[in-house]
Amino acid sequence: MTRLAEILSQGDEIVTGAVVDTNAAWLARLLEEAGLRVRRHMAVGDDPEAIAAALRGASERAGHVVCTGGLGPTDDDHTALGVSLAFDLPLEERAEALQQVEARYAAFGRALDPSGRRQARLPRGAVLLENRFGTAPGFRLDRSGCTLWFLPGVPREMEGMAREHLEPALVSLGLVRDRIHVVRCVGIGESLVQERLRDLALPPGIRIGWRAMIPEVQVRLRGRPEVPPEVLSAVVDRVTLALGDHVFGVDSGPLEEVIGLRLRDLGQTVATAESCTAGRLAAALTRVPGASAWFLEGAVVYANAAKARSCGVDLEVLAAHGAVSEPVARAMAEGIRARAGSTWGLSTTGIAGPTGGTPEKPVGTVYIAVAGPSGTTQRRLRLTGAREPIMDRTVGAVLDLLRGVLG
Amino acid sequence: MTRLAEILSQGDEIVTGAVVDTNAAWLARLLEEAGLRVRRHMAVGDDPEAIAAALRGASERAGHVVCTGGLGPTDDDHTALGVSLAFDLPLEERAEALQQVEARYAAFGRALDPSGRRQARLPRGAVLLENRFGTAPGFRLDRSGCTLWFLPGVPREMEGMAREHLEPALVSLGLVRDRIHVVRCVGIGESLVQERLRDLALPPGIRIGWRAMIPEVQVRLRGRPEVPPEVLSAVVDRVTLALGDHVFGVDSGPLEEVIGLRLRDLGQTVATAESCTAGRLAAALTRVPGASAWFLEGAVVYANAAKARSCGVDLEVLAAHGAVSEPVARAMAEGIRARAGSTWGLSTTGIAGPTGGTPEKPVGTVYIAVAGPSGTTQRRLRLTGAREPIMDRTVGAVLDLLRGVLG
Repeated sequence: MTRLAEILSQGDEIVTGAVVDTNAAWLARLLEEAGLRVRRHMAVGDDPEAIAAALRGASERAGHVVCTGGLGPTDDDHTALGVSLAFDLPLEERAEALQQVEARYAAFGRALDPSGRRQARLPRGAVLLENRFGTAPGFRLDRSGCTLWFLPGVPREMEGMAREHLEPALVSLGLVRDRIHVVRCVGIGESLVQERLRDLALPPGIRIGWRAMIPEVQVRLRGRPEVPPEVLSAVVDRVTLALGDHVFGVDSGPLEEVIGLRLRDLGQTVATAESCTAGRLAAALTRVPGASAWFLEGAVVYANAAKARSCGVDLEVLAAHGAVSEPVARAMAEGIRARAGSTWGLSTTGIAGPTGGTPEKPVGTVYIAVAGPSGTTQRRLRLTGAREPIMDRTVGAVLDLLRGVLG
Repeated sequence: MTRLAEILSQGDEIVTGAVVDTNAAWLARLLEEAGLRVRRHMAVGDDPEAIAAALRGASERAGHVVCTGGLGPTDDDHTALGVSLAFDLPLEERAEALQQVEARYAAFGRALDPSGRRQARLPRGAVLLENRFGTAPGFRLDRSGCTLWFLPGVPREMEGMAREHLEPALVSLGLVRDRIHVVRCVGIGESLVQERLRDLALPPGIRIGWRAMIPEVQVRLRGRPEVPPEVLSAVVDRVTLALGDHVFGVDSGPLEEVIGLRLRDLGQTVATAESCTAGRLAAALTRVPGASAWFLEGAVVYANAAKARSCGVDLEVLAAHGAVSEPVARAMAEGIRARAGSTWGLSTTGIAGPTGGTPEKPVGTVYIAVAGPSGTTQRRLRLTGAREPIMDRTVGAVLDLLRGVLG
């Protein structure tokens, strides 16, 4: 069977741009890392004929087709019908599928209604794929020369089912996989990363890709099977060297996880005092399972009274320098550290916008600080962009500042 | 010329999943809002033949095709060549394009090298589109019955050029746009929404769509231009009636914005005490610009000591009932309200997982509470799924609880 693969995303919300299709990229990485070659992504709307046409085309070009979306209970879920039209297969209610759907509804304390029941109708010959993450079962269809997978559109359900059903099947193909290394950096923009790597001469069979995910930039290096591992490793080393201190991990988890593991190993703890990030810093740290072992508490101190009460910031300091200032950032970090009795205290105070800027302190002016056993470190940030990106970049900057002092 | 449109994204980084294609959704919204009907998105790699095949297919199906990516200076930028192959048009260096590229390089303090010079080569007959946001010019190609636009893949450059060149051309088409109304609900599942609207008889020209975005479900009603506004409005009213209290807005902002505006109008304030959501509740409320007018402070109280210190939760209550309990949820909400001097106090405490569950209190057991002038209301939630979705659903549930008591 050919190594070529295609991905089909289905739903009006995707073709009309109401939502960004993140499933296609997630699946493409899974397929490529299994040794397949993804040649095309397609997205079509809630139109059985369009789905059928896309499926026919993909199944003629590729040996592996993964389709997401349109399996749900609502009237605009048309994927099964599209498959039926594409390959002339009648839709049949499956007893096993019906049992699974009923069980899911029961788990949610609901009786199975007619619309929910539609989810148990599969094209004849399709192999049922249990969905333990939602109500809509998926299915697999084996055509001559092409295997088609049908998964839900909700990313969490799609990813869970892909891990349970698709990935093992891909592994069983026994294809030689590309080797992939990911150099993860923070505190540097995508264009500057590219500029620093502009003169990087890549040996044949090695490809480089960039991925900016605020506040992080990932450099992905991918070596074809014929490339010796040490050759790929040498390129990884050169990239890491070129990006210097900005690199927080190679093939590692996200920044908060790297920091969390370090704190756990050191037996140290952290507490946060947030003004402009308003909980996003605590939320980022607690994304790491087991964070309760090293994250003690956080204070979201919007009002000045709260800054004084929760972080012991002197009201005279607030009056003299303003809430968005270096002394207040320092006082917040030191105050929450003393209050929580943590090893480290982190703080953010700034103007995320869209309003609140002044000539001296325009929108994007942010002060961050890290208080620790041997004193307090702070930074002034001058950020641009909308409210949310400014908040997200601030979280990245203070995590990066902690990473630096943790060493 | 047909109103059908297609979008083609080009680049190995997209088909291999190294980057998520956000351009397609951005362009789809631009095209749909101009009255076009986007029928298909495609993405292909850095392969001139694949680009050519995709362009031929799209130009046969649609009257408007927008292509992004592959215009740059590097060896894997093949869009112009793909166009040449697709429509049998020789590539020619354009003096005007060359001047623009040279000027951009000069602005970056770089001399124009041969690879940079490739960007000045356009298919014969193409209309040059200046790129003031980067080095690679774009171009437009008018075929019989189809206009094709070629824009850079870097989102900032693509968006800038689309605003300057594509959007005015779309406006000049003078297409009548669909009317769209969005009924936004919370506290009800997608399939239950569908069931409640089962007997809704839609007049011709009106389409209904569902979109689940934890913790919200949106019902989108889209009326073709020929549908009288009052007919569409009548359908919106029937949908709103059928969904009752679950509807928090029609064509409104998200739940936190609706709550924020209500608090502002009432001159009331809120404070939050979070355990299992760990800052996500404060982060959601502060997504609303101007939140500082009604959001006073938040406490992220992971450790029991923090629950006692920051929310005045009695340590004996914690010992007697456990941190994940109704009395602790109530005490947290009442404690943060008293502490902050806010009108309302919100709290969350639960087990988000993946670990920490017990037979009596499995992962997904969450207590939420809202303390206010006339007492405290609380709920027990039994949620399923992964750590992050449990946290997100909890945020939605406590915001919905506040919406209820606000009336």
